Amino acid sequence: MFKINDNYLKLPGSYLFSTIAKKVNEYTAANPDKDIIRLGIGDVTQPLAPAIIEALHGAVDEMAHAETFHGYAPDLGYEFLRSAIAKNDYADRGADIAADEIFVSDGAKCDSGNIQEIFAQDNKIAVCDPVYPVYVDTNVMAGRTGTYDPKTETWSDVIYMPCTADNDFAPDFPDEVPDIIYLCFPNNPTGSTITKDQLQGWVDYANKNGAVIIYDAAYEAYISEDNVAHTIYECEGARTCAIELKSFSKNAGFTGVRLGYAVVPKDLKCGDVRLHDLWARRHGTKYNGAPYIVQRAGEAVYSDAGKEQLKKQVGYYMNNAKVIFEGLKDAGYTVSGGVNAPYIWLKTPDQMTSWEFFDYLLENANVVGTPGSGFGPSGEGYFRLTAFGSYENTVAAMERIKNM
Amino acid sequence: MFKINDNYLKLPGSYLFSTIAKKVNEYTAANPDKDIIRLGIGDVTQPLAPAIIEALHGAVDEMAHAETFHGYAPDLGYEFLRSAIAKNDYADRGADIAADEIFVSDGAKCDSGNIQEIFAQDNKIAVCDPVYPVYVDTNVMAGRTGTYDPKTETWSDVIYMPCTADNDFAPDFPDEVPDIIYLCFPNNPTGSTITKDQLQGWVDYANKNGAVIIYDAAYEAYISEDNVAHTIYECEGARTCAIELKSFSKNAGFTGVRLGYAVVPKDLKCGDVRLHDLWARRHGTKYNGAPYIVQRAGEAVYSDAGKEQLKKQVGYYMNNAKVIFEGLKDAGYTVSGGVNAPYIWLKTPDQMTSWEFFDYLLENANVVGTPGSGFGPSGEGYFRLTAFGSYENTVAAMERIKNM
Repeated sequence: MFKINDNYLKLPGSYLFSTIAKKVNEYTAANPDKDIIRLGIGDVTQPLAPAIIEALHGAVDEMAHAETFHGYAPDLGYEFLRSAIAKNDYADRGADIAADEIFVSDGAKCDSGNIQEIFAQDNKIAVCDPVYPVYVDTNVMAGRTGTYDPKTETWSDVIYMPCTADNDFAPDFPDEVPDIIYLCFPNNPTGSTITKDQLQGWVDYANKNGAVIIYDAAYEAYISEDNVAHTIYECEGARTCAIELKSFSKNAGFTGVRLGYAVVPKDLKCGDVRLHDLWARRHGTKYNGAPYIVQRAGEAVYSDAGKEQLKKQVGYYMNNAKVIFEGLKDAGYTVSGGVNAPYIWLKTPDQMTSWEFFDYLLENANVVGTPGSGFGPSGEGYFRLTAFGSYENTVAAMERIKNM
Repeated sequence: MFKINDNYLKLPGSYLFSTIAKKVNEYTAANPDKDIIRLGIGDVTQPLAPAIIEALHGAVDEMAHAETFHGYAPDLGYEFLRSAIAKNDYADRGADIAADEIFVSDGAKCDSGNIQEIFAQDNKIAVCDPVYPVYVDTNVMAGRTGTYDPKTETWSDVIYMPCTADNDFAPDFPDEVPDIIYLCFPNNPTGSTITKDQLQGWVDYANKNGAVIIYDAAYEAYISEDNVAHTIYECEGARTCAIELKSFSKNAGFTGVRLGYAVVPKDLKCGDVRLHDLWARRHGTKYNGAPYIVQRAGEAVYSDAGKEQLKKQVGYYMNNAKVIFEGLKDAGYTVSGGVNAPYIWLKTPDQMTSWEFFDYLLENANVVGTPGSGFGPSGEGYFRLTAFGSYENTVAAMERIKNM
């Protein structure tokens, strides 16, 4: 008789954004006349930039003729895309990453969920608290997190690194040394980040302790301050301790196009074994590459026209961030984030829990946000709004919140 | 100090098709003047059908405007595609599968590699031998296969079901009852299949023994005989014992477009737990959906124009299969397959091993095929050729083989 993976049953509730979608659908069904503004999930709303549309059409035309048709992609991704990434995201920033250390994928969510597979089950993970839920949930599925305490909403074998107003949303080194450290800067959900010097401290800490850092740089394009690193490989020694995950979802609006990549430097080893070889084996065995047309779209992100158009797109969202930040401040809220990230993090008023504020906001302003507690216990009493809506909706949402 | 997943180190050599690609590249580098014909990997060569190209262009245009832009896709895939699948691939064949039992993915390779995650580690798997290597390799990575014996090229905890000329390439029920049974019909690599009655026997066997069948129907479009089931759900009782995996790679030429789906019926349970819920949780947590434009391309596969164009495309490849089958027979080879599948399976001549014949064919005919032993120990002494080349190349390859 077959048996299931019991670890799945340990997961409390459903995936955060599935729960939110369900709640919103229920509210909409009961109140069909209400005009909902969605500033919850980090999904973009601006159309793809013209340079990307042009590249997509061109690649589709190639697929229409036998001479230019493309079947299975190379295991690591097409050379044209990996080279563009190596040049623009690394060499141009003084970071030493070769094209064959880059693995093209269909997005950072898959990569951040799958990367744990190449590690032993008895590694102990550390996560920022609050943070993107995929890191912990996928380790739960793999049986790496021990038992769940519903009272504290924590797992016995996970090291939580609180990021709250007390430490300016920057994690301290944990008391217990972890084996695998997930870092996400600029952080999802707090919208805060750490300086390059602070990140160097983490690289030094990992190298000293034999830990590996999984660095999620999905929001890198939103960095506006000079003393913040755009890639962990700007730090000395990162090649021996860090894997970096990147997404095209936020810098180029690819949430529905699906493209990302993982960097696994060849210097990153456990004894004699290169993690690069393990990830290559996983990629070759379980994955068949991102679509050719999508990889061509990714290439266009790095063209001159693409860069210029996307700079404007990011600017559009960052202007929304400013509207939200200042709107909330004017309305008397305590806010952070929004300077190097498209997320604004606010303290819920009147001691409300995060989910209480979710309902309050949905019912009274018809605005959807994300409860901070969904990202970890230290997110309780906080709430996330995203700058990914349209400008008009963002302004309207702030008006509604002010009048609440 | 972090530790790696040691199971990866148990895998002998690299993924089969990566090894072949490397060998061919080396030969080409050493013999740049040789004109290689590739009938090895099951990669298509015909361009995408006009109906699909049209759908892709249309969807790209939608992504260019805020009003019709699509961000994150629904967890299970877009309703328009799941409904088209439910109607055309199931309802029209009298199989009872609902749209919400279908999970859209980026291909059957990912699904067949990932599906084992929802099962406990101590399940015992059974596989046809030879078969698509992903089933065993991904279970090795998960630590489910015991130890490897390099002499027999088998894993201690895998039940092998030989498919050779002795049993007309149809597996017998194994002596030991497995928990998870991987079946692939029409079979990759042998190109043989079993009748609907035989498949019903497997469904009855699984239901009787509490086993689950992972049914890979990637080659369904190539079935030409009436007594062969196009889906396992044509068999009575399959809803309580079978997961079906489908690909758009072979019926619509999507190897470089990436689309597939898994069917997990809600009646398939382990105790009270529905596998549907586990797979939904995995999908929601580790995956972000196939690209919108690709899902629209998938929808076009089921349009009237799409169906007609793809019927011709499948016919084109099946004509190649006939050319190979008859060409090899004329040249004195013992051949099978090629009637319900785009694969031709031949006995190597003169007691050559599969890899010896690979080298022999590469060097003497400049034709690339796939060694049968790469698909399992019972594939030793066999060799696979695919019908996915162009007609001209297929004819030329047969000429070269006849003249060898």
